[in-house]
Amino acid sequence: MRMVDIIEKKRDGGKLSEEEIRFVIKGYSRSKNPIPDYQMSALCMAILFRGMDDEEIAILTDAMMHSGDTIDLSAVHDITVDKHSTGGVGDKTSLVVGPLVSACGAKVCKMSGRGLGHTGGTLDKMESVPGMRIGLSEEEFVKQINNVGIAIIGQTRSVDPADKKMYALRDVTGTVESIPLIASSIMSKKLAAGSNAILLDVKFGSGAFMKTFEKAKELAETMVKIGKALGRDTRAILTDMDQPLGLAVGNSLEVKEAIKTLHGEGPKDLVELAIEAGAIMLEQAKKVNNLDEGRAKIAQAMHDESGFKKLVALFKAQGGDFTYIEKPEKFPVSKYEIPVYAEKDGYVRRIDSLEIGLSAMRLGAGRETMDDVIDMSAGILLNKKVGDEVKKGDLLATCYTNRMGVEKVIEDVHNAFSLEKDPVKVPPIVHAYIH
Amino acid sequence: MRMVDIIEKKRDGGKLSEEEIRFVIKGYSRSKNPIPDYQMSALCMAILFRGMDDEEIAILTDAMMHSGDTIDLSAVHDITVDKHSTGGVGDKTSLVVGPLVSACGAKVCKMSGRGLGHTGGTLDKMESVPGMRIGLSEEEFVKQINNVGIAIIGQTRSVDPADKKMYALRDVTGTVESIPLIASSIMSKKLAAGSNAILLDVKFGSGAFMKTFEKAKELAETMVKIGKALGRDTRAILTDMDQPLGLAVGNSLEVKEAIKTLHGEGPKDLVELAIEAGAIMLEQAKKVNNLDEGRAKIAQAMHDESGFKKLVALFKAQGGDFTYIEKPEKFPVSKYEIPVYAEKDGYVRRIDSLEIGLSAMRLGAGRETMDDVIDMSAGILLNKKVGDEVKKGDLLATCYTNRMGVEKVIEDVHNAFSLEKDPVKVPPIVHAYIH
Repeated sequence: MRMVDIIEKKRDGGKLSEEEIRFVIKGYSRSKNPIPDYQMSALCMAILFRGMDDEEIAILTDAMMHSGDTIDLSAVHDITVDKHSTGGVGDKTSLVVGPLVSACGAKVCKMSGRGLGHTGGTLDKMESVPGMRIGLSEEEFVKQINNVGIAIIGQTRSVDPADKKMYALRDVTGTVESIPLIASSIMSKKLAAGSNAILLDVKFGSGAFMKTFEKAKELAETMVKIGKALGRDTRAILTDMDQPLGLAVGNSLEVKEAIKTLHGEGPKDLVELAIEAGAIMLEQAKKVNNLDEGRAKIAQAMHDESGFKKLVALFKAQGGDFTYIEKPEKFPVSKYEIPVYAEKDGYVRRIDSLEIGLSAMRLGAGRETMDDVIDMSAGILLNKKVGDEVKKGDLLATCYTNRMGVEKVIEDVHNAFSLEKDPVKVPPIVHAYIH
Repeated sequence: MRMVDIIEKKRDGGKLSEEEIRFVIKGYSRSKNPIPDYQMSALCMAILFRGMDDEEIAILTDAMMHSGDTIDLSAVHDITVDKHSTGGVGDKTSLVVGPLVSACGAKVCKMSGRGLGHTGGTLDKMESVPGMRIGLSEEEFVKQINNVGIAIIGQTRSVDPADKKMYALRDVTGTVESIPLIASSIMSKKLAAGSNAILLDVKFGSGAFMKTFEKAKELAETMVKIGKALGRDTRAILTDMDQPLGLAVGNSLEVKEAIKTLHGEGPKDLVELAIEAGAIMLEQAKKVNNLDEGRAKIAQAMHDESGFKKLVALFKAQGGDFTYIEKPEKFPVSKYEIPVYAEKDGYVRRIDSLEIGLSAMRLGAGRETMDDVIDMSAGILLNKKVGDEVKKGDLLATCYTNRMGVEKVIEDVHNAFSLEKDPVKVPPIVHAYIH
C-alpha cells in the first residue's frame, strides 16, 4: 500500500477502505519511519475538499483512538457519563453540571483540555484553586469515580498521539476546518477516555469554533454518528455562543460564578444550560426516566446544596484547597479593576464573544501560545447581557487585570456591546438536541 | 507574511497576490530554513482544487524561473526558437524539426529532458550516438547556436531549483495533476532556457500525460498565455498520441527513423508533424511570411538533404560520432528480434501508446526509476499504423531486446493493436493550433 495512492484516491473523491485508513494512522503515528508530514498534510487537504462518509469517519476515529492508550472504566460498576464542549467564552458549564449530575447519582468521568486563544479550558479554571491535581493515574481516576462519583483530569501524553501529531500539522497547513477531521479529533479523545455515554455541547456563534448554526449542526450530527457507530450513547446539544455564557470570563472569576450557580444564584443562561445538559446526562446514566424528571432533579440539586457539596468533594479528592470553594473571597483579586460604561441608551442586541474572549486573554486570562502563563485572577465580569436595557453611563462590564496599558482592550470590551433602540428578544441557550 | 494564511486563502478560493506567490517560491527554494514540505504540499493540493487565474500562474512561473540561473541568449543576434513536447511515445520530432528549421536559417536553442516511464526523452536518444555531449556550458551553448544554428542540451542543476523541489514533492503527494502547476513547471524551465519564441507540442491520448483533447487544450492555452504574459512569442499545437508517433519506439531506433525522415523517407505522421511544427517555428523566427511558405521551405529542406546535413553538424558540434548519423547501420543491434503477428484480419483502429511505451521500457528502452540504465538498442518497430489493412499472419511489429523472458511483453504489444472489420479513417496528427 502506498500513501500517494491513498492521497490520489481521496483527491479524486473516492472512499477510503478500512485498511487504507488504518495504514495512514498507524503509519503516521509510529515513531520509526513514519509517513512524512508532507503526505499527511496533502491527504488532510484532500479530505477537507472531498469529505468522508460516515463509515470512513468512524474508522478514522477508531484508528486514532487506538493510536495510544485508552482508559478502561470497566471497574466502575455503573454507566459512566462524560460531557464535552467544543469551546466557548465564559463556558464553565462542566464545573456546574458535572457536580449536579454526580449529586443526582450518576458517575461523571471527564478528560478535559486547556484553553488557547479566546477560549478557556476547564483544566485552567480548576487550577485557579491551589493544589488542584489534574494528572491522576488511571487507577486513581477509576477509584475517585467510584468513591466520589466525579473526576476531571487532563489528557495524558499517551492518549491519542495520532491526534496530537495531526492537530499540530493541521494547525499550520490550513486543514483545521474540515468536519470529518474536527469530528474525529474530538471523538477519538472522548472515546479513548472510556465513558459509556457522552454529551457534546456544540457551540455556535462569534465566540465559537463553528460560526453558524448549520456548520455546528453538521459537526454535532457527525460526532453523534461516530459515537453511536462505535458503541457509545452519544448525544449533542447546540448552544448559543453569540454572547459569552453567564457573566464571568476568566479563570477564578468563572470558578466563583460556578460556585454561585451551585448555590442557586447563577445567571439565567448558565442555569438553563446546566439544567438541560444535566437532564440529558441523567437520562443517559439511566438515573431518570425522561428529561422532565431529569430537569427537576438537577434543579433540586442546585437548590439543596448537594451539587455544591459535590464540587467541594471533587476539589478535595484531587488535592485542591477546597476552602477556596467554601469561601470564594479567598481567591486573589487582580490589582486593577476597570469599569466599562455605556456611552448611549439602548437595549443590548449582541455581545461579541470573540472580542470578549480575546480581550480577556489580553488582560492576562488566556494564552496566545501554549507557552504563555495564565493570570488566574484576570478577566471580565459582564454587567449586562443580551436583552438588557441600558442607560448612558450604566456599567456594561468590569475588567480585571494586573497589566498596565490596557486602554485598547477596554475600548474593545466597550465595542463588543452592540446596542439598539428597540427592545431585543432574548434567545434561548439550547437551540437543538441531537440524539 | 505567514505560509498558513496563504494556504488558507487559496483553500477558500482566494487569489494570491504577487507578493504572496514570490514569498512562497523564494521561501520554499532557499536552502536555509525553507518553507517546510508539509506546508508546500498542502498549498499544492489547495491549488489543485481551487486553480489559479492567468495572472497568478504567470507570476508563479516567473518566480520559479527566477529561483535559479537563467540562460542569456542576447549574444545570439537573431530570434531564438525553442520547441517543447509534453512527452509521448516514439516522439523523435525534435531531432527532425530542429535541424530542418535550423537549415532554413532559424536559430534553434533547445534545453531538453530525459525519459521516464513510458515516454522517451530527447537527451537519451541523442546519447545513443557515442561521444555526444549534452552538458554544454552557457558560453558553448551560445557559441554553437551562432556557429551551427542549433544546439540541444540538458537542463543544468542550477536551472529552476524551485521546480525540481516542487516536482519531487508533487510526485509523492498526489498533486501532479493540476493545470496551473503543470503549466508553470514546464514554462518556468522553457523561459529559463532563454529563447525568444517557443513552440509547444502538447500531446493527448492514451500515451500522453493529458488523456483527453480538452485537458490538453486547457494546458496548451494556459502555457501560451503564460509565455505571452512574460514576453515570449509562445504558440502550441495539439497532437494525437492515441498511437505512437512514426514507427520506431526506442532510442537508437528513433534516431535512425529521424535520419530516414531527414532523407525524405519518413513515416507519414512524423513528416506531417515536422512540416506543421517547422512552418510555425519559421514564422516565429520571422524567416517566412506565412505558414504556407514555411511548409514549403521545410519540405524542401527535407528533400534537399540540408536538414540531414544540419543533424550531422549538430552531432559533430557536440562531440557525437557523426559517422553514426551518416551510416546508421553502425548503431548496435539488439540480440533478439521478435516478430509480432496479427491473429485475425481487419483494419487497425488504435495502437495503445501507453502499452507500447511501457512495453518498450520493459524491453530495456526506458527507465522505471531515474536510476535505471537504458539499453539504447532496445525498442519496438511498428509495421502497421492506424488505418492500415491487416491480414491474419501479417507482421504488426518487431520487438528488439537484449533481455530474455519477455513473452508477456510480446503479448502486450500484440494486444496494443485494436483491429476492426470496417475500414478506419486515419486521423490527422495536428488537431489544433493555439497562438
